[in-house]
Amino acid sequence: MLDALFKPRAIAIVGASVKELSIGNVIIRNLQKYGYKGAIYPLNPTADEVCGLKAYKTLDEIPGQVDLAHIIIPSKFVPQTIEDCGKKGVKAVIINSAGFSELGDEGAALQKDFLQRAKEYGVRVFGPNCQGIINSDPELNAYCNFTFTYPEPGHISVVALSGGVGALIMQALTDLGIGQRFYASNGNACDISIPEIVRYYGDDPETRAVVLYTEGFSNPREFLEVAKEVSAKKPILAMKAGRTEQGAKAASSHTGSLAGVDIATELIFEKTGILSFTDEGEMARAAMAFATQPIPKGNRVGIITNTGGPAVIATDVLVSFGLDVPKLSEASIERLQLSQMAEAALENPIDVVATASGAHFRGALDVMMDEEGIDSVFINFVTAPFTDTHEVARQIVEVSRLGKKPIVCNFMTDLSQERFRITHGILKAGGVPCYANPSDAAKALGALASYGKLRARDIGEPRAFAGVDSARAKKVIDEAREAGRSVLSATEVYSIFEAYGIPVAGWAVTADAAEAAAAAERIGFPVVVKVDCEEIDHKSDMGGVAVNLKDAASVRATVEDMQSRLGSLGKLNFFVQKFLPGGRELIIGAAAERELGHLVMFGLGGIYVEVLKDVVFKIAPVTELEACEMLANIKTAALLDGVRGERGIDKQAVKELIQRVSLLLTELPMIQEMDMNPIMAFADCVYAVDGRIRI
Amino acid sequence: MLDALFKPRAIAIVGASVKELSIGNVIIRNLQKYGYKGAIYPLNPTADEVCGLKAYKTLDEIPGQVDLAHIIIPSKFVPQTIEDCGKKGVKAVIINSAGFSELGDEGAALQKDFLQRAKEYGVRVFGPNCQGIINSDPELNAYCNFTFTYPEPGHISVVALSGGVGALIMQALTDLGIGQRFYASNGNACDISIPEIVRYYGDDPETRAVVLYTEGFSNPREFLEVAKEVSAKKPILAMKAGRTEQGAKAASSHTGSLAGVDIATELIFEKTGILSFTDEGEMARAAMAFATQPIPKGNRVGIITNTGGPAVIATDVLVSFGLDVPKLSEASIERLQLSQMAEAALENPIDVVATASGAHFRGALDVMMDEEGIDSVFINFVTAPFTDTHEVARQIVEVSRLGKKPIVCNFMTDLSQERFRITHGILKAGGVPCYANPSDAAKALGALASYGKLRARDIGEPRAFAGVDSARAKKVIDEAREAGRSVLSATEVYSIFEAYGIPVAGWAVTADAAEAAAAAERIGFPVVVKVDCEEIDHKSDMGGVAVNLKDAASVRATVEDMQSRLGSLGKLNFFVQKFLPGGRELIIGAAAERELGHLVMFGLGGIYVEVLKDVVFKIAPVTELEACEMLANIKTAALLDGVRGERGIDKQAVKELIQRVSLLLTELPMIQEMDMNPIMAFADCVYAVDGRIRI
Repeated sequence: MLDALFKPRAIAIVGASVKELSIGNVIIRNLQKYGYKGAIYPLNPTADEVCGLKAYKTLDEIPGQVDLAHIIIPSKFVPQTIEDCGKKGVKAVIINSAGFSELGDEGAALQKDFLQRAKEYGVRVFGPNCQGIINSDPELNAYCNFTFTYPEPGHISVVALSGGVGALIMQALTDLGIGQRFYASNGNACDISIPEIVRYYGDDPETRAVVLYTEGFSNPREFLEVAKEVSAKKPILAMKAGRTEQGAKAASSHTGSLAGVDIATELIFEKTGILSFTDEGEMARAAMAFATQPIPKGNRVGIITNTGGPAVIATDVLVSFGLDVPKLSEASIERLQLSQMAEAALENPIDVVATASGAHFRGALDVMMDEEGIDSVFINFVTAPFTDTHEVARQIVEVSRLGKKPIVCNFMTDLSQERFRITHGILKAGGVPCYANPSDAAKALGALASYGKLRARDIGEPRAFAGVDSARAKKVIDEAREAGRSVLSATEVYSIFEAYGIPVAGWAVTADAAEAAAAAERIGFPVVVKVDCEEIDHKSDMGGVAVNLKDAASVRATVEDMQSRLGSLGKLNFFVQKFLPGGRELIIGAAAERELGHLVMFGLGGIYVEVLKDVVFKIAPVTELEACEMLANIKTAALLDGVRGERGIDKQAVKELIQRVSLLLTELPMIQEMDMNPIMAFADCVYAVDGRIRI
Repeated sequence: MLDALFKPRAIAIVGASVKELSIGNVIIRNLQKYGYKGAIYPLNPTADEVCGLKAYKTLDEIPGQVDLAHIIIPSKFVPQTIEDCGKKGVKAVIINSAGFSELGDEGAALQKDFLQRAKEYGVRVFGPNCQGIINSDPELNAYCNFTFTYPEPGHISVVALSGGVGALIMQALTDLGIGQRFYASNGNACDISIPEIVRYYGDDPETRAVVLYTEGFSNPREFLEVAKEVSAKKPILAMKAGRTEQGAKAASSHTGSLAGVDIATELIFEKTGILSFTDEGEMARAAMAFATQPIPKGNRVGIITNTGGPAVIATDVLVSFGLDVPKLSEASIERLQLSQMAEAALENPIDVVATASGAHFRGALDVMMDEEGIDSVFINFVTAPFTDTHEVARQIVEVSRLGKKPIVCNFMTDLSQERFRITHGILKAGGVPCYANPSDAAKALGALASYGKLRARDIGEPRAFAGVDSARAKKVIDEAREAGRSVLSATEVYSIFEAYGIPVAGWAVTADAAEAAAAAERIGFPVVVKVDCEEIDHKSDMGGVAVNLKDAASVRATVEDMQSRLGSLGKLNFFVQKFLPGGRELIIGAAAERELGHLVMFGLGGIYVEVLKDVVFKIAPVTELEACEMLANIKTAALLDGVRGERGIDKQAVKELIQRVSLLLTELPMIQEMDMNPIMAFADCVYAVDGRIRI
C-alpha cells in the first residue's frame, strides 16, 4: 500500500534549507502554501528554524511518528539516512537527490546500497532523482514536491516518468481549470514503480481518470497486467514519447536506461484499452472532457453553431476521428422550425446564427438531446457582443446538467473582458468543457468517442487448439540447444510447425538426388528444391534454390548441380517441397521483446513488406479479435479480398494460423525470432512455405 | 486601391442604433473604444444622438467627405442606399447586412442590383453578409467591425472567408501577445475579393506575414496569380477547411457557393509556396514565430533544455517535421564543458539541468549560435522555483536580439504567479516566441523551417518542346466537336499524342481482319487488338480486347470472332497495337478544374491506383521540378527504382512525358478529361498504350 507516500500524516525534510533558491526550502514552503494538514519536521545540521518551523538535527530528535521523509542531501549520505529512517519507523521516502543510477556505476552502487537497507527496514522508496507527489485532498493538502503549480482538488490523477512533462501536464490541467486528485513523478523509479502507482490510482475511488506520461517501461509485463486491471475500471489517457529514433536517443540520454524506438509500449496501450496520445496538450484537453462528461454511446455527433467557419473546421476534425455528423430526423427538423430564426440552417450543423439568444440555443440543444440518431453534442459558441451571452451559457449548462449526452463547447471569446469571463465562469461552474478553438474542442470530443469504442472492444481470451503437441516441439528445441545451435534446421522448423497444426506445404529432407526425386514423386509435382546446410546462409544468392521443378529428372539434375557447386562448403541436405504458385504471399514474423513476451507481425509479403513496410504488430497471445484486426489494419487489406477479378484469400485460415503461431510462441518462450516468409494463401487454404526459427 | 476601405478618414454608419445589443451600436462603440482618429457619422431616422455622437437622417446632411460607409439595414433598402453613397462620393461600403446571395434567388437579385449601382458610381463593396475590417495603425485605429477582440499594432495581417474563424484567429494571436496590422473578413465577397485583399497586404510595407483562412476560392486562378506574386515578398500562412466530404458539405451550407471536396486549393498553396495548415491554433502559434524570428537557413536544430522529458517530446515533433537534431562538434562540446555543470548532458539536446542559472543557459546559447552545424535553436525553459528565472529570460533575450538564428521557447510556467509573469514579460518584450508546451513550440519551429524550404524551392518555368504540332491537335479536336462527339476516337487520341511528341506504342486502326493482320506485320508481333466502336464503352468486359497475339493468323481469327460477336452493336474498327509486356504500369490523368486550368495526376497503375489510391496531383503547367516531385512523392516511389532485382524505369522519360502532357493540356484548354492508362515504362523507354480524351 502506498498510503504512507500519498497520505502521510507527518513528513520529515532531510536536507531542509534556509536558502530561498534551494529545493530543501521550496518543498517546505510548498507544503505550507498548499496548507498541509500534517506535521512538518525540517532537518538541518545548523539552523534552529527553517521557514518558521522548529528544525531538528537528527530523525531521532523528532518527537512523533514520521510517515514520509524527503531526502535532499548529497547522494553519498543517502544510504545511511535510509537506515536512520528505517530505525525511526519512517514508512516511505522521496529521494529528490540525484547522483545514482543515472550517473553510471558509482551512482548505481549507491542506489543498490540504499535500496538494500530500505528493504531490510521495510521502507518504500520513491525516486531517487525525482520530484515527488501531490495529494489535493482538502483534508490533507500534501504537496511533497518542488514544482510551482498548485492544483485544485479534482478527479484526474497524473503520473509521469519525466518530472518536466508531469509538471507541464499539471499546469495545462490547471490552466484549463481542471481539478486534480494525485500527482506523482518518480524519476529513477528504483522501488515504487509506475505500474504500482497506476494500480493505486485505480483503487482510489476519487480518481475518475488517469493521465500517464512515459518514455517506455522497465517492467512492461507488470504494466500490461496493471493496465488491463485498471482500464477495466476507469479511463487511462497516456502518451509515450521517444517515438522517433532521435527522440528515443534523447530519452535514453535523460533516463539512462532505455534505448531504441520501442513499439511495444503503444501495443500495450492498444491491448489494454488505454487511450493513446502523441500531443501532451491534446491529452490535457481531452482530460478536461473526461473530468465531467459521460462517454458517448456511439459515433454520431450533433453540431450547434452560431458561426459558420468553425463548424466546418470542427466537422473536418470530427470526421477524421471516425465520427459521423448525420442528418437530423424530419421530426427534429420540424421541431427546430418552432424555435429557430428564419435565417437559421436546420441541418447538422444547426447554424443558429450569430444573433441567436439563449432560447435559440436551448431549442437546438433540446432537439439534439432528444434526437435518437445523435450520441454527443458539439457547440460552437462565439460571444457575439450583441447577444446576452450569459443567458446562452446558462441554457447550455442547464442541458449539460441533465447528463444525457456528452457536450463539448468551443467557446470563442476574449477572456480579458470581464463580461465574457462571467460567461465563461457560468459554463465552467456548470462543468461544460470549454476550448478556445474548434480543432481543440473537436479533438477532445474525438477522444471521448474513441474511448467509448475502446471500452466496447473486448479482445477476449486466446483460443485453445486441440491436438497441439507442445511436448514434441519443446523436445525439438531442447535438442537443438543441446547441440549448441541457435538457428533451427528446416526439419526442426517444420516439425515444430506441424506440432502446432500449422499447415505446411508437403516437404521432405533428403540427402541426395535419388532421395530427392523419390520425395518429389511422393509430394507431387511441381516442387521446389532448397539446399539445407548450416554453413549456407543466403540460399538464394548462392544458387541454392530451384523452383517449379516439374519432373523427377529435373529434381535429380538440380540436386547434382548443387552438390557439385556447393558441396565443398559443408554437409549438404536437400529440402524438397511442394511448389505452390499463384497464391497471395503473406508474412508472419515474431520477435521476443524484453520482459514482455513476443511481438507478432503480419503483412503481405514481397514488395508490400519490403517497400511499403505495410505490417501490423500485436503482443502475444493474440486473440481471435486481435487476429481479425491484424488482417483489417494493414493498408493493403483490400488485396486480401481479391482485386481485378481475382478471388480473395481464405481469411479465416490466416486468422487461425496467426493464433496457432501465437500459441506456439507463448508455449515456447525460448524462441527469440521466428518468421514464416512467405506463407502462400489461396481462396480455400493457406500454407507456410518457408520458415525460420532462432532460439 | 483599397485605401478607402483600410484607411478611411471618415466613416458613416447607415443603420446606427441606440440599442446596446445591436450591430449598429456595437460598431460605433468599437470605433470609439479602439480610438478611431477619423470622423464617425451615425445615421438614424429618429435619434438625434447615437453613442454620444450627433446622428444624421441622411448621407446628404453629413457636412464633410465620407470615405467608407457601414451598411446595417434590411437588405431591400441596400440598393437605394448604395446609390445614395455614390451620390455622396463615398468610396467604399462595408455591407454588414445579410439577406443576399446566401438566401437564394430573391437575395441574389438584390445583390446584383446594388452591385450594378455601385459600379455606376465607382463605389467598392466589401461583403455583404460580412464582419468588416480592422487597421491597427495607431495613427488611425480603424475598427470597422462588430467583433470583440482589440488587437495591438503589429505586423501580421489576417484575411478570412469566415468571420467566425477570422475572429478566433485574431483572438488567438491576441492571446499569444502577437500584434496585428490588418484584419478583414468579407463574407459573400461580391466585389472586393480575397485575392485583392491579399495583394493589398502584399503591397503594405508594415505587413510581414499574411494569415489566411478559406474554404475554397470562387476565383482560384486570380488567387493563384496573386499568391505567386505576394509569397515572393512575404510568407503567407493559410488554412483551408472543408477537407472532408462532410466538412465540405458544412462549408457549402454556410457559404452557399461551394460544393464537394476540392483538392485544388491545397495544390495552389503548394504551387505558390504558401505554408499550409490544418489546425487553426497551430497556424496562429506559427504566426507568432514568423512575427519576430528570422527564417532558418537549414533543417538542423539545437535543443537547450532544463528538463528531460519535454526535450524528448520536442525531438519527436521536430523530426516529424523533417528536421534534424545533429551531434554538436567536438569544439562546441569542449566549449560547453567550460560553462556547464558536471551533471549537464553536453549533447544535443544540451540538458543544462533544472538548477541551471542564466549563465548556464547563456553558455549553451552562445555555443548554439556559433556552431556551424546548427540553423535554429529550441529552448525548453521550465521556471524551476529555486532558480533566478528573470536572469535566465534576460540571457535568452540578449542572444535572441542578435538575430543570428531563429529561437523558439517552450516556456513552462504558471502565469497566475506574478514572479513568473515578470519572467514571461522579459521574454515577450524581447521578442522571444513563447509556447506553453513542447509540441506547440516544436510545431512553430517546424513551420518556420518548412517555410525556409518552400522559399528555397523555385519550381521554375514550364519547359518548351521543339517539334510540337499544336495546330494539328487543335484541328483533330475541332473536327470531333463539329461532329458532335465529346469522347475522341482512338485515332484522334493517338494523333493528338503524336502531335505533342508523346511516345505511343506502334498502332494502326483497321477495318477488317486482313487489314489488321497486315498492320500487325508492319508493327511487329506480339500485338494487342481492341475493338474501336462508339457504341462499345467497356471493351474488356465485352470481349473486345485480345492481348499477346503472336502471329497474323491469331490476329485474323480474333478480328473475325469480334466481328461475329459484336458486329450487331455498331460500326466496328479494330485497333492494333504493339503488345509490351513486362514493363511497369503507370497512369497519368488530367481533369479540367473550374476556372483554374487542369489538374494533372500521376501514379503507378493497377492495384496501386485502384486499391492504394497512391497518386499525386499538380496544377498544369507542370515544370521539370514539379514533375520530379510527382515521381518522388508517391508512396510507392521506390518501385520506380526497381525492387527485388528488377531494373528501375526510365524516370527522365516519365518526367518528360508528364511535361508534354502538361503542355498539351495548357494549349488545348477545351479538354475536360484525359487519361493514359496504362503507360508502360521500361528501363530505357516509356510508351502510352491506352488513352482517352473527353472534350
